Order: sequence, then C-alpha cells, then structure tokens
Amino acid sequence: MSKIIPVILSGGSGTRLWPVSTDASPKQFQPLTGNGSMFLQTLGRTADRARFAAPLVVCGDAHVAYVEADLAAAGIADARIIVEPAARNTAPAIALAALAARADNPATTILVMPADHVMTDVAAFLAAVETARPAVEAGALATFGIAASHPETGYGYIAAGDPLPGTPDVRRVRRFVEKPPRDQAEAMIAAGGHYWNAGIFLMRADHFLAELERQQPAMASSCSAAIESTRVGDARIHPDPDAFLVSPSSSIDYAVMEGADQVVVVPVDPGWSDVGGWAALHELGDKDRHGNVRVGNAIAIDAMSNYLHAGKGKRVAVVGVSDLIVVTHGDDILVIPRERAQEVKSIVEYLAANASD
Amino acid sequence: MSKIIPVILSGGSGTRLWPVSTDASPKQFQPLTGNGSMFLQTLGRTADRARFAAPLVVCGDAHVAYVEADLAAAGIADARIIVEPAARNTAPAIALAALAARADNPATTILVMPADHVMTDVAAFLAAVETARPAVEAGALATFGIAASHPETGYGYIAAGDPLPGTPDVRRVRRFVEKPPRDQAEAMIAAGGHYWNAGIFLMRADHFLAELERQQPAMASSCSAAIESTRVGDARIHPDPDAFLVSPSSSIDYAVMEGADQVVVVPVDPGWSDVGGWAALHELGDKDRHGNVRVGNAIAIDAMSNYLHAGKGKRVAVVGVSDLIVVTHGDDILVIPRERAQEVKSIVEYLAANASD
Repeated sequence: MSKIIPVILSGGSGTRLWPVSTDASPKQFQPLTGNGSMFLQTLGRTADRARFAAPLVVCGDAHVAYVEADLAAAGIADARIIVEPAARNTAPAIALAALAARADNPATTILVMPADHVMTDVAAFLAAVETARPAVEAGALATFGIAASHPETGYGYIAAGDPLPGTPDVRRVRRFVEKPPRDQAEAMIAAGGHYWNAGIFLMRADHFLAELERQQPAMASSCSAAIESTRVGDARIHPDPDAFLVSPSSSIDYAVMEGADQVVVVPVDPGWSDVGGWAALHELGDKDRHGNVRVGNAIAIDAMSNYLHAGKGKRVAVVGVSDLIVVTHGDDILVIPRERAQEVKSIVEYLAANASD
Repeated sequence: MSKIIPVILSGGSGTRLWPVSTDASPKQFQPLTGNGSMFLQTLGRTADRARFAAPLVVCGDAHVAYVEADLAAAGIADARIIVEPAARNTAPAIALAALAARADNPATTILVMPADHVMTDVAAFLAAVETARPAVEAGALATFGIAASHPETGYGYIAAGDPLPGTPDVRRVRRFVEKPPRDQAEAMIAAGGHYWNAGIFLMRADHFLAELERQQPAMASSCSAAIESTRVGDARIHPDPDAFLVSPSSSIDYAVMEGADQVVVVPVDPGWSDVGGWAALHELGDKDRHGNVRVGNAIAIDAMSNYLHAGKGKRVAVVGVSDLIVVTHGDDILVIPRERAQEVKSIVEYLAANASD
C-alpha cells in the first residue's frame, strides 16, 4: 500500500475563542494548548514519513502565511497548500484535496483532519487509522468515532452498527446524527454505540470522488474544473475561482457520508477535543490545587476553578472569584463565566455591529 | 481677616486602587473621577483668590513632577511646594506648612485638605469653611464632620457636643473615635451627632503650632529646626532632612486634636468620598441602566452592577457577570468582586513579596 496523504483542513475561524482567535488570526494558529499551535500539532501527528506522504493543506488566502510559518517550524519543506478561492464548507475543500491526491496516484489514501483539534493520545489515533485501512482499501469511507464522555449537544454523533466480518473494531455506520437536543444526546449515551463525529476521515481518493460524483455531480464538476487548470504538484495550488465559486457549499457529512454506500466507523479514544471554547481550555489545561488554569503571568488569590490567560507581556490578577474565564490578549480583555463561555460570540457580534469601536 | 492659605497634603499612596494607583503614581494624580485628577480638583476648590491665597502643597520628592504638572494645568504659578524629606504622617506635614504660613504672617489661617478626596458640592464645603471661621479666629481648631450615611468601619468619627453660643452649626467636639468596629459604628449612627472625620481642618497657624508645642514638643522642635534653614517664600521648600527625620510620626488627630483645648466640628454634607477603593468609584460613577459604571472602551452584555475600567487604548468586554470590578491599566488586569474590593491589597502584597514577577 502506498503512503497515506494527510489532508489538513484549515478553513475554520473560531470566534468562540475571542479575543485570541479572530477571523484574521484563527485559533488553529495560536499556541493555546501544549506545544505550538493546533495546526502544528496536527502536522506532528502524521510526521512519520514511513507511513505518511507530505501533507496537503487546504486553507484560505488570508492564512497562507500562518500555514507556511508552521510548516517551517515543523521542518516540512515538501507540503502542498491548496488555497481555497472562497469558503465552501468541508465537502468542496476535501474534493479539491482528493482531486490533487488522485492525480498523484488514483489509489492514494487520504487522511482528512481538521487543523483545530487537539489529541493527547496520538498513538491511539494512529492505531485506529491502521485498523481502518483494510476496509478503506476495500472501498469503504472510514470515519473515526470518539468515545462520548457526556451528552454533548455541540457535536454530531455517529450511530454504529454491526462490525465488519472478522474486524470487531470496524463497524458499519447506521446513521449520522446532527447536533442533537439534550434529551436525544442523553438517550444516545445511555444506549451505547454512539460516538462523537470528529470530522476525521480515511478514504481512498478515488472512492471518495466516485461517491461525490454520484451524489453531488454539480459539486464534483465545479471542483474538478477548478483544479484542472492547476499543476497539482506545485507547492501552492490555486484552483480557478470562477469554477470553484459555483460549487454548492456543504459539509462532507451531509453531502457524501450520509448517503454513501459503504461507510464505517472506527471507535477511538485519543483524548480528543475540538477546543470549541474557553471552557474546553479550562478542561484541557493543567490545574493548580484550586482548580485554576493559569496561562502566562496570572495571579490567583482565594480564587477557584478559573481559566486565567495572560497574553504576552500582560499580567492578570484575580481575587475571590470562581468559575470565571479571564483572557487578555493585545489590548482586549474578556471576562465571562465558564458555563457561559459560548456566549463570547455575542461580543464578536457586538463588535461587528459597532465596527467603529 | 487675611486670606486663607490652602494646605494640600499629597503624601498618600493609595494601593487600594491598584493597578491604576501605585506608590510611584498614586491615586490623587490619576483621572479617576470627573474632570482631571483628585489633586487638580482639590486645587480647584480654593481657586477663588478673593478668599484664598496661593496654596502650599506638601508632598514627597517622588511626586513633585505630578504636582507641578497639575499646578500648571490649573494655571497656578505662585504655589509653594514643601518637599517632605520622608513620610512622617500628617502631624509633622501640617506642622511644616503651618510654620511656613506663620512665617508669612502669624495670624494666617490655613485650610488643610487631603489631595485624594472628591466632593460633589464644593459650595456646601466653602460655606462650612465660612461658618467655621469666626471660631477659628477666636482660637479654636476646626474640623469638618461629614454627614455619615452608613455605619462605615473604614473611617474615624467625630462625636459632636453642644453648639458654641449663638452658632448652632459650630459644635464642640466631645471626642474623636478611631475606625470603629461594626456594632460601634451602628450605635453612633443610631445615636446621631456623630460625623465622619474627613481629615480637613481650618485653623490659625499660630494656634495650631501653640497646641503642637504644648502637646508634642519633640515634634514641634524637629519640624521647626527642619524649616528654619529654608526660605519659606521659595517656590520649592526643602526642609532639613536630618532635623525632620528625628520627628515622631503621628497623625494630627492623635498628636494634636484629641488633646487640644478648643476643638470644634462643623457638620457638612459636601458629597464627600475619600475614594478608598474601587467600590467607591462604582458608587461615585455614572451608571448605565444595568448599574454598570463603564470607564473608557468597556462593553457589558447581560451584565449588572459592575465597575469596568478600560485604560488608554484598552478594551474590556464582559458577558454575564455581576458585581465585579474589572480594571485594565498598562499591562495589568484586575478582577475582583465589588464587595471584596479592599482585598486588592493582597495582590499588592503578593507582588511586593514576588518582586521578580
């Protein structure tokens, strides 16, 4: 089998981590967790060149400089960057990458990974990729199902069916469930056999494109036309904007996976998080004995279970507060309760509506 | 009667307003309330040159530049600054000023005012000064008693006795009460006739110095020796450090007022605050319809009764919090509940003990 091409999707913006993450400087390029940015960590997961080929990165024009900086930091000189002419959700982005990979070699397998997730157990993830591979070579599109620890309403779920013959860890997908209401999420957790959909996929480029052509012919043809004029071996691939912009915008789940003939799920528990807000960074971070996560120069006196994030050169001091998020970055300061951290978006909306501020 | 010489005491440091107020840059020089600094506002109270002579300012060497800047801003070119060789509390500071004033004219009356208070009704204050003046000319040391609105434990109190004959608004002082416990404060409020001691005094320089010599001969002689070598008409008066440093350190209340023969109190309600912490600035500030005081670029969403202070160039955004103090100044950010605002001192102490931070 040929080497797997990592396809890293870096189109997200992540305003739920304002003020650190903004449209101009999204979360995947910020050193929010562990060592380096989440994009750099994602590159690191497939650094083993015995198993993986050089990565294909899909991103917008505004973020190419960030991508290049992290590629240089990772010591990767042979990556290719597909610069999306516009954001069209994940299905067209993956289609562009699959078209480039198929041009290399029709039988190439791609491992699609969002750039803005963290994993604490990369070995578990890579083992799951190996587990999925025979089914993928045989024609399946493989998803990875994250062990669901609680009835999260912010994720999609995958309902697993029977295992494939002789491979107990590779199961057919019964159905995809979009972000569920609370009671449905609780019922799925109670029933078992339901996993979070992490948006990570292993599939042969040719098999994926065949499904795309069958289910989404308009998308397939516009992506194909957009990539046709490029040289897919170049370090920077600029698909034709006119061709790409007529593509429908849709997620891979909705456009392809839900209707595909052969979809499997490999359950895995790689210590995954999509870092979907400041509360997640409190969960992920190292806590002091009072449950505070302190990033940078942060002082907590008689304070419990806070997430305190002092940007470069800044100092945060709190007294007598609990369960708060306090973030200072540049000239901005955010204060919000942990349990309401998702409401950061109301600030971003306010600022957009009052752009003279 | 000759014009009154305003004596402005500017020796305080005010770490309870960290991070805006520090030893190097204390609160009286910061634009925390209304127009300009509290020092500038204090200068403005006695700007009427028909009634007041040029001010005498007492401050430490580190703050002379701030004083000069505010004097220039006030358009005052003939003020004199007495530069204290060291801090020795209020009694020696006032003694230096009284000695300089007496050298001008033995019968001069001085109006002693701390530089770090605010008053919203200056007319009421000036009327009280006029009310006090006949008793002061007759030999009394006059204090001003602030109408006590609640059983504050952070202030000293003045217990008023009988009025002087024919002057119902000038009362003898029965006793001075240092910062009381809560139950005592409540009892004083309930009993009536008790006022907050604002540290503001009107007295003839010669009468004050006679009491000082009688009660505190060591202090009187060291202050006298310290001022003797100077020219009291100079714009900058530098008392002799060796002479001054041997003076005992004591407050005017304890050293002179409590034991003086003739002390009177003039009750007044000038909208006074000593701005003793961030909670006071919330009380003093203009509130939005949700009870938030917002200084600078501060955004409050679904938030109530907060004090939000964004320093120059900074932006504070809060969501879903109540009764918090959030202050950003330079590279520092403070977050503390309003009701615990006095505990800011624990941060200042922490920083002093960890000075490498």
